[in-house]
Amino acid sequence: MTTVGILGGGQLARMMALAGAPLGLRFLVLDAAEDPCAAQCAPLLRADYRDAGGLAEFAGRVDVATFDFENVPADSAQWLAAKVPVFPDPRALAVAQDRLAEKTLFRDLGIPVPDFAAVADRAGLDAAIAAVGTPSILKTRRLGYDGKGQFRLKSPADAGAAWDALGAQAASVGLILEAFVPFQREVSVVAVRGRDGELRAWPLTENWHDHGILAASLAPAVVGAALQETALAHARRIAEALDYVGVFALELFLCDGVLVANEMAPRVHNSGHWTIEGAVTSQFHNHLRAVLGLPLGDTAAIGRSCMLNWIGELPDAAPVLTEAGGYWHDYGKSAREGRKVGHATLRADDDASLATMLERVGRALGREAQVAPVIQRLTEV
Amino acid sequence: MTTVGILGGGQLARMMALAGAPLGLRFLVLDAAEDPCAAQCAPLLRADYRDAGGLAEFAGRVDVATFDFENVPADSAQWLAAKVPVFPDPRALAVAQDRLAEKTLFRDLGIPVPDFAAVADRAGLDAAIAAVGTPSILKTRRLGYDGKGQFRLKSPADAGAAWDALGAQAASVGLILEAFVPFQREVSVVAVRGRDGELRAWPLTENWHDHGILAASLAPAVVGAALQETALAHARRIAEALDYVGVFALELFLCDGVLVANEMAPRVHNSGHWTIEGAVTSQFHNHLRAVLGLPLGDTAAIGRSCMLNWIGELPDAAPVLTEAGGYWHDYGKSAREGRKVGHATLRADDDASLATMLERVGRALGREAQVAPVIQRLTEV
Ligand SMILES: Nc1ncnc2c1ncn2[C@@H]1O[C@H](COP(=O)(O)OP(=O)(O)O)[C@@H](O)[C@H]1O
Ligand SMILES: Nc1ncnc2c1ncn2[C@@H]1O[C@H](COP(=O)(O)OP(=O)(O)O)[C@@H](O)[C@H]1O
Ligand SMILES: [Mg+2]
Ligand SMILES: [Mg+2]
Repeated sequence: MTTVGILGGGQLARMMALAGAPLGLRFLVLDAAEDPCAAQCAPLLRADYRDAGGLAEFAGRVDVATFDFENVPADSAQWLAAKVPVFPDPRALAVAQDRLAEKTLFRDLGIPVPDFAAVADRAGLDAAIAAVGTPSILKTRRLGYDGKGQFRLKSPADAGAAWDALGAQAASVGLILEAFVPFQREVSVVAVRGRDGELRAWPLTENWHDHGILAASLAPAVVGAALQETALAHARRIAEALDYVGVFALELFLCDGVLVANEMAPRVHNSGHWTIEGAVTSQFHNHLRAVLGLPLGDTAAIGRSCMLNWIGELPDAAPVLTEAGGYWHDYGKSAREGRKVGHATLRADDDASLATMLERVGRALGREAQVAPVIQRLTEV
Repeated sequence: MTTVGILGGGQLARMMALAGAPLGLRFLVLDAAEDPCAAQCAPLLRADYRDAGGLAEFAGRVDVATFDFENVPADSAQWLAAKVPVFPDPRALAVAQDRLAEKTLFRDLGIPVPDFAAVADRAGLDAAIAAVGTPSILKTRRLGYDGKGQFRLKSPADAGAAWDALGAQAASVGLILEAFVPFQREVSVVAVRGRDGELRAWPLTENWHDHGILAASLAPAVVGAALQETALAHARRIAEALDYVGVFALELFLCDGVLVANEMAPRVHNSGHWTIEGAVTSQFHNHLRAVLGLPLGDTAAIGRSCMLNWIGELPDAAPVLTEAGGYWHDYGKSAREGRKVGHATLRADDDASLATMLERVGRALGREAQVAPVIQRLTEV
């Protein structure tokens, strides 16, 4: 009987626990919250990531550990890794936690990235603007997610406003200025690497964001084989450089035919949720297989799928449940603005059916704007 | 937030809880055992089905109740149904709990059944043999499962041995004598009926038993459309007669082109486990949708699937996990002779691939005999 410890008890841990039960796995979730949503599906050890006693108890009760949350303090992850196997390795986590280290690695590996520069203080921001130019984006190096901790500069004149917004965080989490990429599409490659070094990737996913939060994904993305291969090659290079074990996502901008790397997530990823029903093996299953050293499962897609994120509150489930190939995922959270509370996946064998399904669901839920770009992509060919 | 109570904490409850979490459901499992396998996936209320205090607490903590185990005492089910909605209705359960009531219903509905007669005592057995003939099978009316509580009579001379084997149970659970059906195949139809009366059925499944326990299922069964329709019509007639709500299975013998009804299971069924990966909507999802009054999901198959039951102990998972379309289900139980401890589902888009997969898996696990009849069916066309 193997117990997998998960640092963080959000929806990713929850879906991991649900996927892992058929493998006979037990889970233990470490989270400081009173009732994190994964605790509905797995036992909870309530403690802060920095609580030495909690970490020690956690280490004593699990056989292997992994992450639902990538911003676990590097010290805690490293301490834990000295007691039990931890995948991905805390060193890989450390790189992915820091936009500067991450972009530097990508660039060193020959993967296109936007121009970027570290920003240590107000004068450093001016220097970075001089080097990187505008439009550009000032971001916190650490702890940013869902578009939080970002300020967009249209011209050098925005430097003061950018500093007012984020300057106070320069000391604690660091800042980076990145050139704005005038991309045509955003895509991600979700990949998994086994303990033996085998790498598999799901087909490329196209993603649409709303206010910095993922709103919809379409997979396989409607792109040619050459882009698929380039994305896979980038993912492979990164995974090998980090000796990565488990699932990760690489977010890319498609800009004038070039794939420009934005960031990586060292964990299962929102843009891979479609794999639960839309792929032979889901990202959650394969992450666990990788972490446990089991054979990896097939990552082929079954037809085409669209994932719709539910942010803030859940819409009515019926229009999705009524569709053949409509799947509902309620994370068991209470409603709160900007919170990811669930998602739906719509899967079909052909693009015309998927587009019609999206139209029906979008109309029934009053979510026409959310589905519109996906329908356009499916029908523009 | 809806809490679904499940009477019984075995693998069916476990898989139901795993399927229900994405619907945002919470569960409470009632079971007298210390560590039933569903308790790894849902909270447990440990009490006997006849324990009034336990039942009352259960009723107070759930919004709706259903069954993992069909032999819950009718009194307890009825008591509960007075407190909270219970699906299927305890009256439907009562019919399915008693082979005599069940076969009488089938016959009254015009569904072919083997000749049968109730047996109250030793003299009654002789009378039943005179009426039904031999070969025949003496069975307990209640509480039989996995071929337990059965005695086969080749000739009237076996009456004494049959009585020695089962006579002591005549008073407690009742006995029935059934004509032996010299069937060519065993099939089952798994169907679901909603609270609004809508009925949907998955494609017919062919089943192979070993010592009375399901060993393998193939779905969709390799049969023509006429048999599919007849089986569906039988299922519909039974469900409507019982005003049934939820998933049920009807086991049928195919004998010289005629479908002869054997028994029904008033719950999700082992021969429907393939629907988890092999159908658009699984039996577990649809059972919950029915119980909650949600729209039913599509029951179409995706390619063809073979389910292999693991009895007594789990074989090595690797040969299954290595297959694209190979899915593993460990129920989290300890090994014990005759116990259902898990299953695997192998799914493929075409029959040749499925047959080859079965050959590889059968050989790797030393389970050639278990897969052989399935391979034969797939390749004999
Ligand atoms: N350099 C950039 N050029 C253009 N758009 C960007 C850039 N960086 C981020 N964005 C936009 O902002 C979104 C969120 O930024 P990202 O760096 O991925 O942060 P997060 O960690 O919050 O996902 C991206 O998905 C993209 O739409
Ligand atoms: N009347 C019958 N004729 C032929 N075989 C039968 C008959 N009844 C039962 N069997 C065989 O025994 C198995 C188990 O019997 P069944 O009545 O289904 O009991 P259980 O509730 O244990 O599943 C059946 O699947 C079938 O193979
Ligand atoms: Mg991002
Ligand atoms: Mg049976």
